[in-house]
Amino acid sequence: MAGEVARRTVTQLEDLVRDVPDFPTAGIVYKDITPLLADPVAMASAIDAMAAPWLGSAVDFVVGVEARGFILAAPVARALEAGFVPARKPGKLPSATFSESYGLEYGHDSLEIHTDSLPAGSRVVIIDDVLATGGTAAAAARLVSASGADLLGFGFLIELPLLGGRSQLAGLAAHAVMSLGTEQGGD
Amino acid sequence: MAGEVARRTVTQLEDLVRDVPDFPTAGIVYKDITPLLADPVAMASAIDAMAAPWLGSAVDFVVGVEARGFILAAPVARALEAGFVPARKPGKLPSATFSESYGLEYGHDSLEIHTDSLPAGSRVVIIDDVLATGGTAAAAARLVSASGADLLGFGFLIELPLLGGRSQLAGLAAHAVMSLGTEQGGD
Repeated sequence: MAGEVARRTVTQLEDLVRDVPDFPTAGIVYKDITPLLADPVAMASAIDAMAAPWLGSAVDFVVGVEARGFILAAPVARALEAGFVPARKPGKLPSATFSESYGLEYGHDSLEIHTDSLPAGSRVVIIDDVLATGGTAAAAARLVSASGADLLGFGFLIELPLLGGRSQLAGLAAHAVMSLGTEQGGD
Repeated sequence: MAGEVARRTVTQLEDLVRDVPDFPTAGIVYKDITPLLADPVAMASAIDAMAAPWLGSAVDFVVGVEARGFILAAPVARALEAGFVPARKPGKLPSATFSESYGLEYGHDSLEIHTDSLPAGSRVVIIDDVLATGGTAAAAARLVSASGADLLGFGFLIELPLLGGRSQLAGLAAHAVMSLGTEQGGD
């Protein structure tokens, strides 16, 4: 993970992530990033740290995963001068879509992307808030592959390494600003 | 609405909004902004046009409305050096919330905001993609009021003036980058 970001250190960013035990279901410790989002200096630092690994990579499109991923992916896209493409929950996109199902840390769901959103051969990065078990990111990756685009890798604000999600990412580059344990309480 | 934006004209932005008839239900013409989001110059122009009216207003927080509103509100928050606060669908926010119900153009729903997200007296702008009947924006405004914050006004990418949403906004400032008819087809 990154050492220091532009205007907040990673430790300061970590202090703005709130642990919420037993949300959305018993036994899950939810990582609430809303205190970080509400701090403009922290938010800018986080976005710049997420964009930094891709600045020299000629990224054409940033795919953001609904819904929290949108909050980070849209400013990352701007920082990279790339287009923004939403990967959405079922039934939300109005035109023809590719669809992929995935298992979540809690439950399961699917993701869709417009079939005409990523031209074949375009250079794509997937951005989401948290890398947990990796199921969502892997589904997003399959959507990019179905489009014929070139997936360069992934960026996350938070990685929860104890959940092993990195193993689902096909060995592609995956950057996270912070790496957090899953133990309850703490920060 | 604005005349010209930084690097794309309003007419060029309008050409990147795709009409999708009968989505999500029969009789609704859905305004699909994904072609605009995928064009980095158009996206940057739209964000700058949405931020411009508030640049001198010392905005503390930009409230983004789930889900498409997140895509615009997060970069607008950065452009204004303001914090980002999500107004979310029910059950998505992990901590204590205020909640407001509203009627939609099609169906009804409710929005929530963390009770500790907007300090009393803080200066707030609400950002969403489309001003249609105004129900969502009005609910978001009630959430800001419940927080004791000072709502300066609203910003939208698209206003559909034939649906009369502006009348729901309590006379507050409301800016839209483009104003579109609701007739089917066209662009």
